[in-house]
Amino acid sequence: MTNHDDSRLRVLPVGLGPIGLATVRLALSRRSLQVVGAVDLDPAKVGRDLSALLELPEPTGVAVTGDLDEALARLRPDAVLLCTSSFLPAVREDLLRCARAGVSVVSSCEELLLPELQHPALAAEIDAAAREGGATILGTGVNPGFVLDFVPVVASAVAYEVRRVVGLRVVDAGKRRLPLQKKVGAGLSAEEFGARAAAGTLGHIGLRESVALVGRALGLALDEVTQTVEPVLAGEERRTAFLTVPAGAVAGIRNRGYGRARGETVVELDLQMFVGAPDPRDEIFLEGDPPVHLRFEGGIMGDSATAAILVNSTRQVVEAAPGLKTILDVAPPRLAR
Amino acid sequence: MTNHDDSRLRVLPVGLGPIGLATVRLALSRRSLQVVGAVDLDPAKVGRDLSALLELPEPTGVAVTGDLDEALARLRPDAVLLCTSSFLPAVREDLLRCARAGVSVVSSCEELLLPELQHPALAAEIDAAAREGGATILGTGVNPGFVLDFVPVVASAVAYEVRRVVGLRVVDAGKRRLPLQKKVGAGLSAEEFGARAAAGTLGHIGLRESVALVGRALGLALDEVTQTVEPVLAGEERRTAFLTVPAGAVAGIRNRGYGRARGETVVELDLQMFVGAPDPRDEIFLEGDPPVHLRFEGGIMGDSATAAILVNSTRQVVEAAPGLKTILDVAPPRLAR
Repeated sequence: MTNHDDSRLRVLPVGLGPIGLATVRLALSRRSLQVVGAVDLDPAKVGRDLSALLELPEPTGVAVTGDLDEALARLRPDAVLLCTSSFLPAVREDLLRCARAGVSVVSSCEELLLPELQHPALAAEIDAAAREGGATILGTGVNPGFVLDFVPVVASAVAYEVRRVVGLRVVDAGKRRLPLQKKVGAGLSAEEFGARAAAGTLGHIGLRESVALVGRALGLALDEVTQTVEPVLAGEERRTAFLTVPAGAVAGIRNRGYGRARGETVVELDLQMFVGAPDPRDEIFLEGDPPVHLRFEGGIMGDSATAAILVNSTRQVVEAAPGLKTILDVAPPRLAR
Repeated sequence: MTNHDDSRLRVLPVGLGPIGLATVRLALSRRSLQVVGAVDLDPAKVGRDLSALLELPEPTGVAVTGDLDEALARLRPDAVLLCTSSFLPAVREDLLRCARAGVSVVSSCEELLLPELQHPALAAEIDAAAREGGATILGTGVNPGFVLDFVPVVASAVAYEVRRVVGLRVVDAGKRRLPLQKKVGAGLSAEEFGARAAAGTLGHIGLRESVALVGRALGLALDEVTQTVEPVLAGEERRTAFLTVPAGAVAGIRNRGYGRARGETVVELDLQMFVGAPDPRDEIFLEGDPPVHLRFEGGIMGDSATAAILVNSTRQVVEAAPGLKTILDVAPPRLAR
């Protein structure tokens, strides 16, 4: 019958930035997981107990190390929770280390959602190493990984035909933490925004991967995937707990991703994150037979949801067949306790 | 990398009632599936071409046979689409036949969603046969199988904690086909409804399985699963295209399922199907951290969605490891073309 393996999984967090730390904090609270170590290259973190980084009252007994290969060999984890970078080339080495050690990986690396989109040779290399080593590797998170890709694809289960997919995520950045407000450019002038967007230091990563994954999963035969980045300007002054957006300045960002097939836009994902965004929500429309329209009222929280999805996907990844997988190839994520 | 096996799957529909025929019709339209035969015990159907049962203009070349064992041996299908009964004991023999032949099964049998709930010995027998024969067996559909079980469990992927799950499905039976209107008791007197409900010939099958699956998947440690059936009475006369519900008569049904843990109701599923039901929808509330609230606007169509989910789960079931599985153990369903 179904798997009732209640043994604890040994997990090794790698990368202790904001997402990594949120993931560690959650993993430490799970009966079904055991945090057996932690890896980060930052000399200011190496050697410290996780409790210092998480501001916990009691030591966890888990110290940060800077050497992943050593940690894999010594700790023999079931899975690595990898939160070091958004870009595939930057996680390549660590993925190969885990693959060779036969240790599965769940990662928030946005490009890992569909690595062959931008890095086909790298993806093939990682897949081969994972199969050879007996490891399963998955990129996931809330966006990409859930709201604008997993959800519309799974919603298609009830359909006979899907001709077009529209996804909309609206986040009121004014109610989120300061780093998110800065990340979306709140308070910048339109010129500053333009310069940063041109330099690629502004904008959501992974939207093209979401578009491409949806298109491929639903057989929409995309021949072009593009994205746009534009500022949302404040008509009047807006204040958050952390900053003030003057009238006419940037309140946040709008990223749109498009998938086209034979000249028609058949996948359109629209991500809006700005201070004062009205009616925050996640909404999916499948045009087809029958049409499907679903909506997460209030929207799904970002960073905490990514940490949740990593932790809530770990057992499924460990139990899947080896190789480089997508979120559609393994059993679906769900609350792990 | 991910599986790109585009070879056609050979499918054998078994059971050609309304759901079975809807499933066959859809399967015939899929490039990725090949309907290699069809099985039904009804002498009025045996020997006929599927086109006669589906009212198609052209023969399909696929004739109905009454002998499943013979069809399995001769046709060597990859999967059986089994739509013969809602009850596990009634599908036991056919499941064992398929398991022994090493043929995977996707079935609309409602009790097969979580067969060990009401039939633990039978479930163990079927699981053992499936593992031995190398077959994968799954019970699914729209309800049970998607709206009130798969969806709330998958929505929990973004959560740190879920304390309580509430699911609501409201169907306006007045806009559906006559058999559904009859199935929900529309037009009966309250007395007739009570007699039929007491005899077990009225009411949704599978609601307890949905409650139990949600409770188990989310670690809610249910110690009691119950359900209630009650009529929804029409305050004033209501007319559909097929029948009239006099004032005071039964407009339809309300089924509720409850999962309790230590005296508290932690799973509550509410299924309302009646003529004139306002605001048809499927709605899920997860009380927890963070709370999650999602809504399918207008609701998901019933019978056609079940046919879709069977077809849209077939490749995932064929590719899963052998055994008796639940919808949470295999890769998620999605549109098959």
